Amino acid sequence: MRQAIHQLKVETNGKGLVEITRPVLSWVGEQRITTGLLTLWCRHTSALLAVQENASPDVRADIARYFEALVPEDPTRYAHDDEGPDDMPAHLRTMLTDTNLTIPVADGRPVLGTWQGLYVFEHRRRPQRRQIVLHLLGE
Amino acid sequence: MRQAIHQLKVETNGKGLVEITRPVLSWVGEQRITTGLLTLWCRHTSALLAVQENASPDVRADIARYFEALVPEDPTRYAHDDEGPDDMPAHLRTMLTDTNLTIPVADGRPVLGTWQGLYVFEHRRRPQRRQIVLHLLGE
Amino acid sequence: MRQAIHQLKVETNGKGLVEITRPVLSWVGEQRITTGLLTLWCRHTSALLAVQENASPDVRADIARYFEALVPEDPTRYAHDDEGPDDMPAHLRTMLTDTNLTIPVADGRPVLGTWQGLYVFEHRRRPQRRQIVLHLLGE
Repeated sequence: MRQAIHQLKVETNGKGLVEITRPVLSWVGEQRITTGLLTLWCRHTSALLAVQENASPDVRADIARYFEALVPEDPTRYAHDDEGPDDMPAHLRTMLTDTNLTIPVADGRPVLGTWQGLYVFEHRRRPQRRQIVLHLLGE
Repeated sequence: MRQAIHQLKVETNGKGLVEITRPVLSWVGEQRITTGLLTLWCRHTSALLAVQENASPDVRADIARYFEALVPEDPTRYAHDDEGPDDMPAHLRTMLTDTNLTIPVADGRPVLGTWQGLYVFEHRRRPQRRQIVLHLLGE
Repeated sequence: MRQAIHQLKVETNGKGLVEITRPVLSWVGEQRITTGLLTLWCRHTSALLAVQENASPDVRADIARYFEALVPEDPTRYAHDDEGPDDMPAHLRTMLTDTNLTIPVADGRPVLGTWQGLYVFEHRRRPQRRQIVLHLLGE
């Protein structure tokens, strides 16, 4: 049984989904582990991980719009606004979405369904450089 | 340290929770691993995993009703409707609920609390055949 | 490759966030595992796990307030009210927040980002004694 760790850097471009399926699968493939367990950890509290269909742009736009309505940028609602109007909504979205994903690996690749893609869901307005830690364990 | 992988097939019957605690515990028991880590991965983006009380039917009905209100089937809200009115709400619920669960195993069984049960939460109207991958690692 | 398991007991004091970063890091440190995988499992369906900024009290109050509005204590909305008005909302919050977290470990500690802290998010009004199972695997 072996382990490997890697830090994936992801440039985001304002609120929304950035797909990371390809670099994740590529790194897993290089480790030559047939059966195992892959864990992704997002080292931030204002960007998260998501699993979604390798979706049409419509789906992504609908997701962004839905989250704007569910957790609005409205300073009158929140006591905390030290870091701008998008900060407290980002904290709240963190509670509703995922910081980590753990995926079984079989035949040398994560067992994603046909339509499943891996995404970083950025909750801040400005472009950010995000760190996703990948951990693979197996043999 | 050993690993085992299994694909659990779950028939759903429209929107709502389907309990899978028993087949999961049964498969784990057969692996004869005393201490370890169990991971469940749902290979779909319109059905998810949930941990709930082995609950009264009232609780399940309240959960279904709450999600109908939180993420309504209302085509006027969404740009994406290629696959029917329950499709975009299913995508959004995917963002709010869990694709994976990872549970420590001690004394040969997952450390679920007394009241915790494992469920598939179906978000589509029509019955579906869902695939849940189980991965167990330990000794 | 070695494993360790520990049960962390956490006293909560009504609804809200209780930080557990310190006891978790302390237990991990004692295991002398350099590289590995840490899993936290909450053995309850009315208290969950969360990752948040080691935040100002304002942030925590905003989070509590947001969840009161998103999942209100309003008996007229729910069929299930056997265990009091905070019970069904706790079930629903369970669906929206996390029962488990799995974090890679490098250089002997979980790879939390600079601002990430680990919390128990209590959903019941009365103080409770909560059990969090910690599982560490690595070498």
